[in-house]
Amino acid sequence: MSLVRVHNFAVSLDGFATGEGQSAEAPFGHAGGRLMDWFFHTRTFREMQGGSGGGSGADDALARAWGPGIGAEIMGRNKFGPQRGPWTDHEWNGWWGANPPFHTPVFVLTHHPRPSVTMEGGTTFHFVDATEQEALRLAREAAGGLDVRIGGGPTTVRRFLAADLVDHLHVVVVPIVLGRGERLWDGLEGLEERFRVESVTTPSGVTHMTFTRP
Amino acid sequence: MSLVRVHNFAVSLDGFATGEGQSAEAPFGHAGGRLMDWFFHTRTFREMQGGSGGGSGADDALARAWGPGIGAEIMGRNKFGPQRGPWTDHEWNGWWGANPPFHTPVFVLTHHPRPSVTMEGGTTFHFVDATEQEALRLAREAAGGLDVRIGGGPTTVRRFLAADLVDHLHVVVVPIVLGRGERLWDGLEGLEERFRVESVTTPSGVTHMTFTRP
Repeated sequence: MSLVRVHNFAVSLDGFATGEGQSAEAPFGHAGGRLMDWFFHTRTFREMQGGSGGGSGADDALARAWGPGIGAEIMGRNKFGPQRGPWTDHEWNGWWGANPPFHTPVFVLTHHPRPSVTMEGGTTFHFVDATEQEALRLAREAAGGLDVRIGGGPTTVRRFLAADLVDHLHVVVVPIVLGRGERLWDGLEGLEERFRVESVTTPSGVTHMTFTRP
Repeated sequence: MSLVRVHNFAVSLDGFATGEGQSAEAPFGHAGGRLMDWFFHTRTFREMQGGSGGGSGADDALARAWGPGIGAEIMGRNKFGPQRGPWTDHEWNGWWGANPPFHTPVFVLTHHPRPSVTMEGGTTFHFVDATEQEALRLAREAAGGLDVRIGGGPTTVRRFLAADLVDHLHVVVVPIVLGRGERLWDGLEGLEERFRVESVTTPSGVTHMTFTRP
């Protein structure tokens, strides 16, 4: 059965999954790299960057679960880039360079569809104006029986959780107070009742929480 | 040196330290006992209730640090009781019965002062209309060189944190999404920069976070 999964999704103590003021230079706004610092130190991340080294402990083991079994990703437009409204810069194809780390079809949710873009390494960005259910149907078709990852940002993950479409949620609570940005948990009262929840703190200081269907 | 300490202060994943709709029957409003469930299972809590049994593992060890070295407590009016505005029910003396677990002077912050009330077991409630700094001066005087505990609720803890008067903060993150109530973290952006932060998850599923001065 094809599952819907969220991985390596970091939130601050006050529940913000990204800061305020996103720009081409600052994908996470004023949060900078603080939400993903634990990840930058993992071997998984270093390998994604084409490098080597990095830790291979628990943070890495949990981070690595991101890839296997995934056949397609769905992401919100604000994860793809900082442009809002009609697309003016068609040269922008994400923060990830010519060879993005996805290596699958990626469905970008936007009210402003544009032609698909094929990148190096097997990643194709499709731009769709769709409900969560429609996007998931498209992604499942493209995934060929494999799982679908909801890649973020907070609004997108929150909408899929609210629609009860997520089977596996891996949230990383980072011990910082961001103060402003976009919240993950809004409108999700009682979310824990739908899942079995497990928590573990690692030496980097973050707490990994996994929500899986009971 | 007399420290200012917060202990056993539970928050939900979305940062609420109490629910909505406090009443005499529901000190935590719609949150019910969910924020303190980990605590109810500790030996520390059972002994506070005059009973015995309960766990004596990590939750208990952390819960137990609540008492030693404390000479006075400061609490907000909403921790003391559900009444708002001028006091109409003078028979209400807290949720804790004739012998409250504090056993020290307790300063209740209120814009409506009333005469002090001496309970069994060494607890005296003083009702003061004071700033954080003034209340702390009074509590320190009463504590005779011992530490002062800020007992809650969220508004009171947040105000003492905002005024940078807290030396030790023990927060317990409970893996539930409350959705509504009173938030702890609002207005505290960058709080972690003033502290050394340590996190540990226990088998009950909560994450204990201790913020101590570097």
